[in-house]
Amino acid sequence: MRARVLVKPKAGILDPQGQAVQRALPALGFTGVTDVHVGRMIELDVQDPARLPEICERLLTNPLIEDYEIVSADPPAPTTASA
Amino acid sequence: MRARVLVKPKAGILDPQGQAVQRALPALGFTGVTDVHVGRMIELDVQDPARLPEICERLLTNPLIEDYEIVSADPPAPTTASA
Repeated sequence: MRARVLVKPKAGILDPQGQAVQRALPALGFTGVTDVHVGRMIELDVQDPARLPEICERLLTNPLIEDYEIVSADPPAPTTASA
Repeated sequence: MRARVLVKPKAGILDPQGQAVQRALPALGFTGVTDVHVGRMIELDVQDPARLPEICERLLTNPLIEDYEIVSADPPAPTTASA
């Protein structure tokens, strides 16, 4: 399984990168962008997806200050036309 | 629109963070994980999604060495039961 782990700061945790992006946007002429958060994405091929939460909590994230979400990055299965 | 921008190193570009994760996993007892890449995730509320590609190319990514993907992070619309 090709998986993506999306990691972002928990609500209430300081996010200086997000603040920096949000402040830079109006200076470049982009208005109407709010609530910016910067996190990480880890893509990996994993044989046993059941171990992914443990991998996330032990290596990929800091569970004290970060939330994560696991999403599949497998390409959609090709649809087979029935004869 | 709540959007997520997923950024990762282009194929062929050195990814030392991905290599570090991949090498650390077997030492922690996690086998069967390959092809690890570490990138960034930026979450934002944007009024005009049509401007997102320009925002990505001018501020959020380095198009020379990074690929990006824009995905919606809107919650699915609630289904309304018909009376």
